[in-house]
Amino acid sequence: MSQSQLDYSHDPSHESYDLIVRNDAPFNAEPTPPDLVKHYITPEKYFFCRNHGPIPLLDENEHTVEVRGIGCKEVKRLSLKEIKDYEKVSVMMVMEGNRRDGLHRVKHTKGVIWGPCALGNAVYSGCRLKDVLESLGVTSKLDNFSKLHVAFESVEQCEEDRCYGSSIPLAKALDEFGDVLLAYEMNYKPLTRDHGYPIRVVVPGYIGARSVKFLKSIVIQDQESSSFFQQRDYKILPESINTEEQANAYWTRLPAIGEYNVQSYVCIPADGVHSGPRPSEQVQGYALSGGGRFIQRVDVSGDDGKTWVTAQLYQPAAEGNSVHVWGWCLWTATIETKRNVRIVSRAVDSAGNIQQEYPIWNYRGVMNNSWRTVESNRLEQANI
Amino acid sequence: MSQSQLDYSHDPSHESYDLIVRNDAPFNAEPTPPDLVKHYITPEKYFFCRNHGPIPLLDENEHTVEVRGIGCKEVKRLSLKEIKDYEKVSVMMVMEGNRRDGLHRVKHTKGVIWGPCALGNAVYSGCRLKDVLESLGVTSKLDNFSKLHVAFESVEQCEEDRCYGSSIPLAKALDEFGDVLLAYEMNYKPLTRDHGYPIRVVVPGYIGARSVKFLKSIVIQDQESSSFFQQRDYKILPESINTEEQANAYWTRLPAIGEYNVQSYVCIPADGVHSGPRPSEQVQGYALSGGGRFIQRVDVSGDDGKTWVTAQLYQPAAEGNSVHVWGWCLWTATIETKRNVRIVSRAVDSAGNIQQEYPIWNYRGVMNNSWRTVESNRLEQANI
Repeated sequence: MSQSQLDYSHDPSHESYDLIVRNDAPFNAEPTPPDLVKHYITPEKYFFCRNHGPIPLLDENEHTVEVRGIGCKEVKRLSLKEIKDYEKVSVMMVMEGNRRDGLHRVKHTKGVIWGPCALGNAVYSGCRLKDVLESLGVTSKLDNFSKLHVAFESVEQCEEDRCYGSSIPLAKALDEFGDVLLAYEMNYKPLTRDHGYPIRVVVPGYIGARSVKFLKSIVIQDQESSSFFQQRDYKILPESINTEEQANAYWTRLPAIGEYNVQSYVCIPADGVHSGPRPSEQVQGYALSGGGRFIQRVDVSGDDGKTWVTAQLYQPAAEGNSVHVWGWCLWTATIETKRNVRIVSRAVDSAGNIQQEYPIWNYRGVMNNSWRTVESNRLEQANI
Repeated sequence: MSQSQLDYSHDPSHESYDLIVRNDAPFNAEPTPPDLVKHYITPEKYFFCRNHGPIPLLDENEHTVEVRGIGCKEVKRLSLKEIKDYEKVSVMMVMEGNRRDGLHRVKHTKGVIWGPCALGNAVYSGCRLKDVLESLGVTSKLDNFSKLHVAFESVEQCEEDRCYGSSIPLAKALDEFGDVLLAYEMNYKPLTRDHGYPIRVVVPGYIGARSVKFLKSIVIQDQESSSFFQQRDYKILPESINTEEQANAYWTRLPAIGEYNVQSYVCIPADGVHSGPRPSEQVQGYALSGGGRFIQRVDVSGDDGKTWVTAQLYQPAAEGNSVHVWGWCLWTATIETKRNVRIVSRAVDSAGNIQQEYPIWNYRGVMNNSWRTVESNRLEQANI
């Protein structure tokens, strides 16, 4: 559906937000780097908004979610009231989709030019998707279990497809420690329309694209979602793929992204450089990794990577926790800075994965986790 | 215990192996790079051996494994016969401990100087640790579950501690999709003494150090193993820690390594360079990642990273599999090579993690996953 056919006149006002708008319609916006790291739990005012079409106008008293497919003993239409009858649990997790700008600077990429702040750390509450599926008879004993997926569809009409859709492995949905929720609250308040009212999926440890908002259906099936957003969007194409035509011939050869990679960013100073040399400057930023991996170390450099100091980490969920950590890490470091030299961070996650120095370009501009890039006109001496 | 007090006279003969011996006593050895990638399932002849002391002489008719601790309704001594009464399952997985040499070249590291071939891909068979623990009453409903661990002790006496020991999170042990086994077979034959006869733990997706051989006890406890090998060995120290004294003050501040990071290596040509320029040369190598993440792409360069081609991957377990992939990926690529210029590979795992170009040194020399390094005297033009 082309943009001209979609009606954005019912989108909510975003006046109470303090965000940089990347696109008005569909509404896509993110906070500034310093605002992002002000709070460990990101308030809605500073929480990035990601949409692919007009924001639906739904009523929680009328909305239902259909659940069906392989292993389900019946087709079930769940009202919000029925969803709230399942045990209520809360999960703190990062919602993420991020940093296309760094790759776009290398070469043109396709998509909204997200900066480094299209992520936020929130507490979502709702019922476990696992509980809903198990109540319909879905278990890991199903034939060919490892090849089954849970597909989600949204009410959201999109520019790229008839509606937003995505899927996750059934094993993730049924994982006792996977924490996939059907959420109706964010930060202990009912979801707002911008964040998926009245009901959304949240998939901890996976890219935000899998956490489908305005949820209308859940289907167990023997293949991934056929949606544009699963098949031809969030995949890491090789550097050699430069055009839509080349991409179209390549999509099926690649896996859809699920878990995200290790990431960190210098948020204060906002532009990643200081105009004067300072012997002792406090810098701040965030770090995170996918799949429940926590951050074990962040190194910070005030001389573009020649020397490093170890940052102080704030990541309470990782303390003594031996299962998964879905929340992020905020860090601070005191470093010596030089005049107009890039300040960079590199995070090491609990599996020893490390950020690389240079971005590897890909056509869709996804999963960029290089060291922070800085506008070259701000620099006197740096390697990028 | 110092080396002089341990008796290696009963170690088995290793004459049938085709391995480079890194240390005679304890016996530590690995294959050459070309041998390693000859087979998708690594035969024992080419399978690295890792020991910290003399190889125990045990009899499977007499050996028992004690299981006890938090949540166990009794202290249980399991004979091998009883272990074989549990359902038998097989798991293909990589056993890994690797590439200290790359960091040792940067600066002295502590430990056996492993090359790039201290890993192998095998099929292990045995019973699920989960089944054993559940039969004793251990479940995820235990209080403070996320802070519980399963500690393993070995019969193996060690140079560094009274015996080999290690632990994993109880959540990994009980994970329905975690595939932790008490294994008594490797590649469909009874374990040999070199690989843990009569019984060992195998922990897919984790560094080999957690897969304890010659298993004598399993204890559920509210802290990690107190063993040297959990507390003061396999951890990634910051670059600034250079001495034993500095390390001793730092160990408790760091997490023990569990899952390993994304990795790949050029195995053919064996030395990572060609002496002549060749327009079309086939190169081969391996790639893998921890935590069940599979390899989605391997890029290969014949000009030290200036240009890249996409390798052909052989990784059958990843085909249509939406759960975990514990086996490795073998790859081939046809590239143009230059005279004495480094050939390198970089793998991208399913979570988008990528190998970095340069190693980040750490005192214990662990988790090195930089691009392949090459002896500089072999090179005419390269950046390392």
